[in-house]
Amino acid sequence: MARKLVKKMNVALIGQAFMGRAHSNAYRQVGRFFDCGLEPVMHTIAARNAETLASFAAEQGWSAHTTRWQDIAEDGAIDFVDVATPNDSHRELSLAMLAAGKHVACEKPLAGTLKEAREMRDAAANAEGSQTFVWFNYRRAPAIGLAYKLLREGRLGRIYHVRASYLQSWGGPATPLSWRFQKNLAGSGAHGDLNAHIVDLARFLVGEEITEINGAIERTFIEERTQLGTNERKKCDVDDCTLFLASFAGGATASFEATRLAGGHLNDNTIEINGEGGSLRWNLENLNELWFFDASDAEREAGWRRIVATSADHHPYAAAWWPDGHICGYEHTFTNELADILRVLGDEQPVLPLPDFADAYETQRVLEAALVAARERCAIPLSAVL
Amino acid sequence: MARKLVKKMNVALIGQAFMGRAHSNAYRQVGRFFDCGLEPVMHTIAARNAETLASFAAEQGWSAHTTRWQDIAEDGAIDFVDVATPNDSHRELSLAMLAAGKHVACEKPLAGTLKEAREMRDAAANAEGSQTFVWFNYRRAPAIGLAYKLLREGRLGRIYHVRASYLQSWGGPATPLSWRFQKNLAGSGAHGDLNAHIVDLARFLVGEEITEINGAIERTFIEERTQLGTNERKKCDVDDCTLFLASFAGGATASFEATRLAGGHLNDNTIEINGEGGSLRWNLENLNELWFFDASDAEREAGWRRIVATSADHHPYAAAWWPDGHICGYEHTFTNELADILRVLGDEQPVLPLPDFADAYETQRVLEAALVAARERCAIPLSAVL
Amino acid sequence: MARKLVKKMNVALIGQAFMGRAHSNAYRQVGRFFDCGLEPVMHTIAARNAETLASFAAEQGWSAHTTRWQDIAEDGAIDFVDVATPNDSHRELSLAMLAAGKHVACEKPLAGTLKEAREMRDAAANAEGSQTFVWFNYRRAPAIGLAYKLLREGRLGRIYHVRASYLQSWGGPATPLSWRFQKNLAGSGAHGDLNAHIVDLARFLVGEEITEINGAIERTFIEERTQLGTNERKKCDVDDCTLFLASFAGGATASFEATRLAGGHLNDNTIEINGEGGSLRWNLENLNELWFFDASDAEREAGWRRIVATSADHHPYAAAWWPDGHICGYEHTFTNELADILRVLGDEQPVLPLPDFADAYETQRVLEAALVAARERCAIPLSAVL
Amino acid sequence: MARKLVKKMNVALIGQAFMGRAHSNAYRQVGRFFDCGLEPVMHTIAARNAETLASFAAEQGWSAHTTRWQDIAEDGAIDFVDVATPNDSHRELSLAMLAAGKHVACEKPLAGTLKEAREMRDAAANAEGSQTFVWFNYRRAPAIGLAYKLLREGRLGRIYHVRASYLQSWGGPATPLSWRFQKNLAGSGAHGDLNAHIVDLARFLVGEEITEINGAIERTFIEERTQLGTNERKKCDVDDCTLFLASFAGGATASFEATRLAGGHLNDNTIEINGEGGSLRWNLENLNELWFFDASDAEREAGWRRIVATSADHHPYAAAWWPDGHICGYEHTFTNELADILRVLGDEQPVLPLPDFADAYETQRVLEAALVAARERCAIPLSAVL
Repeated sequence: MARKLVKKMNVALIGQAFMGRAHSNAYRQVGRFFDCGLEPVMHTIAARNAETLASFAAEQGWSAHTTRWQDIAEDGAIDFVDVATPNDSHRELSLAMLAAGKHVACEKPLAGTLKEAREMRDAAANAEGSQTFVWFNYRRAPAIGLAYKLLREGRLGRIYHVRASYLQSWGGPATPLSWRFQKNLAGSGAHGDLNAHIVDLARFLVGEEITEINGAIERTFIEERTQLGTNERKKCDVDDCTLFLASFAGGATASFEATRLAGGHLNDNTIEINGEGGSLRWNLENLNELWFFDASDAEREAGWRRIVATSADHHPYAAAWWPDGHICGYEHTFTNELADILRVLGDEQPVLPLPDFADAYETQRVLEAALVAARERCAIPLSAVL
Repeated sequence: MARKLVKKMNVALIGQAFMGRAHSNAYRQVGRFFDCGLEPVMHTIAARNAETLASFAAEQGWSAHTTRWQDIAEDGAIDFVDVATPNDSHRELSLAMLAAGKHVACEKPLAGTLKEAREMRDAAANAEGSQTFVWFNYRRAPAIGLAYKLLREGRLGRIYHVRASYLQSWGGPATPLSWRFQKNLAGSGAHGDLNAHIVDLARFLVGEEITEINGAIERTFIEERTQLGTNERKKCDVDDCTLFLASFAGGATASFEATRLAGGHLNDNTIEINGEGGSLRWNLENLNELWFFDASDAEREAGWRRIVATSADHHPYAAAWWPDGHICGYEHTFTNELADILRVLGDEQPVLPLPDFADAYETQRVLEAALVAARERCAIPLSAVL
Repeated sequence: MARKLVKKMNVALIGQAFMGRAHSNAYRQVGRFFDCGLEPVMHTIAARNAETLASFAAEQGWSAHTTRWQDIAEDGAIDFVDVATPNDSHRELSLAMLAAGKHVACEKPLAGTLKEAREMRDAAANAEGSQTFVWFNYRRAPAIGLAYKLLREGRLGRIYHVRASYLQSWGGPATPLSWRFQKNLAGSGAHGDLNAHIVDLARFLVGEEITEINGAIERTFIEERTQLGTNERKKCDVDDCTLFLASFAGGATASFEATRLAGGHLNDNTIEINGEGGSLRWNLENLNELWFFDASDAEREAGWRRIVATSADHHPYAAAWWPDGHICGYEHTFTNELADILRVLGDEQPVLPLPDFADAYETQRVLEAALVAARERCAIPLSAVL
Repeated sequence: MARKLVKKMNVALIGQAFMGRAHSNAYRQVGRFFDCGLEPVMHTIAARNAETLASFAAEQGWSAHTTRWQDIAEDGAIDFVDVATPNDSHRELSLAMLAAGKHVACEKPLAGTLKEAREMRDAAANAEGSQTFVWFNYRRAPAIGLAYKLLREGRLGRIYHVRASYLQSWGGPATPLSWRFQKNLAGSGAHGDLNAHIVDLARFLVGEEITEINGAIERTFIEERTQLGTNERKKCDVDDCTLFLASFAGGATASFEATRLAGGHLNDNTIEINGEGGSLRWNLENLNELWFFDASDAEREAGWRRIVATSADHHPYAAAWWPDGHICGYEHTFTNELADILRVLGDEQPVLPLPDFADAYETQRVLEAALVAARERCAIPLSAVL
C-alpha cells in the first residue's frame, strides 16, 4: 500500500526532563507507525541546563540545541514548538511562539495560574494561522478512545456519576523537595499535576462542562522537606492532595481526587462513569483495558467486561501498533496524540478531538474553582470563575 | 473440649422482611458455631402483616408471634429485643423496650432523623441495666476485623486518606416505589441506607471522629416512580445518591459516596485507607479478602497483597466457621455480631468493639451534617450538629 | 405464600469431623431457606470418638448419638443415612445402609479404591427402593448452576478445552501426619481429595464422559512427616500432587491438577471451559462469580464478563438466600445440594442433576485411570478401567 | 553524565512481516534508551516481496534493501544478521550467515524441525568468532527479570510446580489459511509458536532442564480452512493446541499448554511457579506486573502481592524507560533484549542471560519430545531425543 506524499515540518522542543524524553520519542516514532501526511523533523531543542543538553540532544535525535529559547522564536525555519517545561514558564514561552507565528503544543496543565492560562487562551484565539494543542495524552489510550465512542453513541444514556481519582504514592515525608513542591514553580501540587488529567478526561468523555464545584479539600500533610542534595529543610507550599465534588451541566455528579500519598498506587489514574445504559471504567496502570457494563445485556448474564482494546479493526490507534493482545505502554499515548496533531495540521480529521488552549482553559477553570471552593469552604458555580 | 455452661436468654424480634430473615438466621446459628456462654431462645416475633406472620415464624423458628409489639414490651420473660423494622419506627420501639427494661439491638441507621436518634441515645444512656447495640454488621467481616487490628497496632501510621463508597444499581427508573423511596418512612434514600454503613466502618477503622464535612451533593435523579402493584406514578422524595467530603480529627481526608444508580455494582461497599505505613482496601462483594499494602516491605517486592481472611488461627471470627480458604457469606457478619453481643451480655469481652446507640448517634450526626452541607452548599463543622 | 405440606424424614449422620459439621448445618438450614416438601429430622449421629460425640451432637442439634453405626442400620425409624467418614469406610457403611433399605448420601470420593467404588455402584443398582447421592457439593454453587445452563443451551458450541485445577497449600513439610497422608485410610492424597471434585465438575459441565487419559504425574514430594502430637517421623504414602491430561468423548482436551503444595492458594478450585461459542471460568474462592466470554458479542466490545450469580430471578438456588449482591459462602453449596436431594426423595425435579453412586463411579474410573497412566507411563483408554 | 564511547555495528534484517517491524523498532530505539557501547546501524533489509520492500525499508529506517538475502552474506560491511522469517528458512539463513562470519540473532522457535535446529546448534558451536542469539523476548519483561532474580536468590526454595499456558483465540474456523497453518512452512502450529515461548521461560526461570515428558496431547480441531483471498478449502496439518506434562531435573512437575482456540484470551502467556518458599505468577497481557506470594510473610498477613515492576532502582531494564508506574508495552521486550545483545557483543555483561542457539536447541528438544509423547502415547525421557 502506497503511503501518502509527505510534507516535512520542522519541530522544536523546549525541555529536556521526563516530558522532553517522552515527546522526543513521539517525534521519532510517529512516522514509523502512522501515515499522517506530515513528517516532523527534529530541528532544535532548547533547555536551560547546558551541561546535559548536548548529550540529551544527541541521544534523542535533535539536530541542534540551544540554551536560548529565543533562538527558536527567531528561527523562521521552525513551524511547530513543543513546550515541555515546568508550569511557570508555559505562558511566556507559548505567547512568544504564538507571536512568532508558530504552532504550539504545550504540556498540561495549561499554566500555573488561571490568569496565565487565560492569557494563553486569548493569545491562541488571536494568533491567526497558529494552532494550539495541549498534551492531555491519556485521551489517546485506545481504551479511552473506545470509551469515548461508546459514550458518543449514547450507549450509557443519561449520565449519573463520574468518579475519577489519580492516586500516586511517591510524595511521602522522605521525598526531597523539588520544583513540584514549590508553588512559585509548579502553581500547585497534586492538583495541577494530577487533577488536570482527570478533569480533562472527564470533560472529554462526558462531553459536557462542569457547572459547579460542590465542595473541596486541599491539604498539605508534609509541610517541610529536605532540599535535594542538601540537609536544608524547606517549606512545601503546594497541596499533597486535593479532592472535590462537582456537577456536570446535565446533572451528573462527579468526584475527583488527586494525591501523592496513596501507598500502593504508583500511577493509578482511574475513571468510572455510570449511566442509565451502563458503566465504563479505566485505569492507567492497565491502560490497554476498558471495563464495560452494558445494562442491556440479559440480566442473567450481565457483568463487567474486560475489553482489551488492542484490535486493529475496532479500537482507535491500535492498527498502528501490534497484533491484538500485544499491549501498548505509557509513551504510546504521546505518539497517538502527535499523529492526530499532524493530521490536523495537514488538514485531516483527527481520530479523536484534540484539546487546544481554549479547551484546556476550561479544565483550568475547573481546577481554579475547586481551589476557591476549598479555601472559601463553600460551593462555587463555575460561572464565578472566568 | 468442654463447652461453657450456658445461660438462656429469651429474644424477641420485630420485623419479618429481609432483616427479619437475616437476624433469625443469626439466632439459630450462633450457638452452633460459637461458645458464648449465653444462648438466645427464639421466643417471640412481632410484625404488622398478619397474613404472612405465622408461616414466617414457623419457617424461621420463632415460638410465638404477635402483631402487637406491645406484647413484647409487656412480657417479662423477654430479655432482649431486636428492632428490625423500617427506620421510622426505630425510635418508638426502642424507647418502649428500654422503658420495659430490655436490652435492645436496633437495625441501622439508628433512626430516620437526627432528632429521633438523639432521643434514642439519651434513652439508652438513662436506661440503667439495659444495653444497646446497632446492627452495623460489616464491622464483623473477618477481613474487616483484621484491618481493625492492623490499624490499632499502628501499622498504617499517620492516616492520610479514607475513600469509601457504597455503590448499588437497583434503583433505576424501572424500579417501582417502595418504602425505601419515601422520606416519611425511610428518612432518606441511599444516604441513610448505605452511607450509614460506610461512615460507621470509617469511624470504626480509623478510630477517630469526623470533625468537618467539607462539601456534599444530595441528588434525586428519578423523581417519579410507579407504585408497586399499580399504574400510579408517585413522587420520590429521597436521594438516589449522596456524596460528601469530610475530615477526621487527625487530619485525614475522607470521601463518601452512596448511590443506587451505579450500573454493574450490585452491593459494592468499598473502603480504602491510606497511611504513612501502608494501605488497606476491602469490598463487600468479596468480603473474605483484605488487600494490604505494607510500605515497610522491601521496595523491590512491595505490592498490594490479597489476604484471604479465613484463618482460624489468625483472623477474627474465622475459627468459628470452616477451614482456611472456605469462604463465608453475607449472613455470617450478623452471626459474628450476635456472638459478640452475647459475650458482652454475659460479661465477656467481645472480639471487636460493638456499636451502641451512643456510637451510632455519632454516625447519624455525620450523616445529618452531610445533608446540611448539601443543602446549605457549604462546609459544616460537626460541632454545629449536636 | 402458603408453603407446601411437609412430610418428615428421619436422618442419621455418620462422622463428626469437618464434613460432619458442614452436613449438620445443611440439615438445620435447608427447611429455613427452601420449601422442599420433605423435612429432615436430625435423628441420630454416629461416630467413633465417644469423648467428643455427646457435645458435638448437642451443639449441632442431633437428638441421639451412638458410637455403633450398626444402631443406625438397625433402627427402622431412620430413612436416610449420610456417610461423612474417611474414604476407607464408605463402602462398608454404604453397603450396610443400603442393605437395611435406607437412602444413602456419601461423601466424595465415592471410595478409597475403584474396587470398593464398583461394589458401591453395584449395591446401589440392586437396592430397590433406595436412592443414592454423593456430596459433590460444588455443582450447587449458583455460579456453577448458571454455567451448566449456558452449556446445556449450547452457548459454548463445540467444546475445545477444559482446564481444571484444585490448588491448596496446606501440605508443606511442616504439616504433621494425619489420615489424609496415609494410603490405607485415604486411598490417595490430593488426587482423591481434590481431583475428585474437578473431575466431577468437568464431567457435569461438559456433559460428556472422558474417554482417555493422555498422560499423568503422581508425585510425593514430602516423603516423611511427624505424627500429630508426637515426635515420631512416619512415611507419607499418598501423592502430594497429581496432574493428568485427558480427552472427552467429543474431542475436547482436558487438563487436571490437584496439589497441596501451591503456596498462596488456599482453596483454589478453578475450572475453565473454552468452546467455539465462548468461554466460562469459575473458582471456588470467589464462588459467587462466573466469568463468561461470549464470542457472539460485537468484537469491539467482547471481553470476559464477571457475573455475580446472586440473582433470585436468574440464578439457580439464589432465590433461597439473600438479595442480589449479598454473597453466599462455602456451606451454602451443601444446603443447596440437600434441597435437591429432598426434592428428589419427594418425587420432585431437582434444580440441577444430582450425582448418584453410578455417576460418582464414573468419576472414580477417571481417577483410577489417571493413576494407571502415571504408573505405567502411558496413555490409557477409559475402556481399560472398568 | 557522559555516555560511553560508542562503536558502530552494521546490522541486516531478513523479514518484513510482524517480526520485521518489531525488530526494526528495537534497532531504532535501543540507543535512545540504553547506553550499550555498541550502536546498531540499520544497514540492509532483505525480504522476498519486492512490491512492499522499498516502502517498508523507508518507513522503518533501513538504508538499503534487497530481495536476495545472499547480498547480505556477501557484504563484508555487515556484522550482524537478524533472521526474522518463517521457521522453515531459519536453518538455511543462519548457516549461511554464520559461514560468512556474522553474528546471528534468530527468531524463535530455533527451527521448524529438531534436525534443522541441531544443525544450527552445531554450526553455531563451530563458528568461531560469531555469536548467536534467539529472540525469546519475554525473558526481558522487567517483571520476568524480577522473577528470575528472586528465583536465583533461592526465595522460592525447592520448586514443586510450574504451570505454564499460552492461550490465544484467533484460530477459530473462520480464520483463513496462512503459512502458520501449514506444516511445511511452520513446522507446527500452536506448539512451536507458543509452547516454544513458555518452555523457554520455564527453563530460564527454574534454572534446570526438563528431563521427561510425562504425557502429551497434540490436536487439530479445525481440519480445513479457506485459503486467504480465495474460496478454496485446504487441509490444515498443524496442531491447534498442544498440551504436555513434564518433569524438571530437580523433581518439579510442569504443565504446558498452547492453543489458538481459547476464546477470550488474546495473548495470554501465563506462567506460575510454586516452591517451598512461595510462588510467582506472571502473564503477558499485564506484562508489567509480577505476582509474588512470600511464604515467609507472617501467616496473618500473607497473600499474593501485585508488584508493578517499573522501578528504575529495583527492576531490570526499568531504568531505561519511564518513571515508576508508567507501564511498558510489548515491543519493549525486544529493545531490552537487543540492549543485552549489544552489551554481550561489546564484551559487557548482559542484565540477564541471553539464549543462544545451544540454549534454544534444548527448548526445541523439549518441544520435539512432547510431540513424540503425543504420537507414541507414552512418557518420553528427554535423553531419548538428542
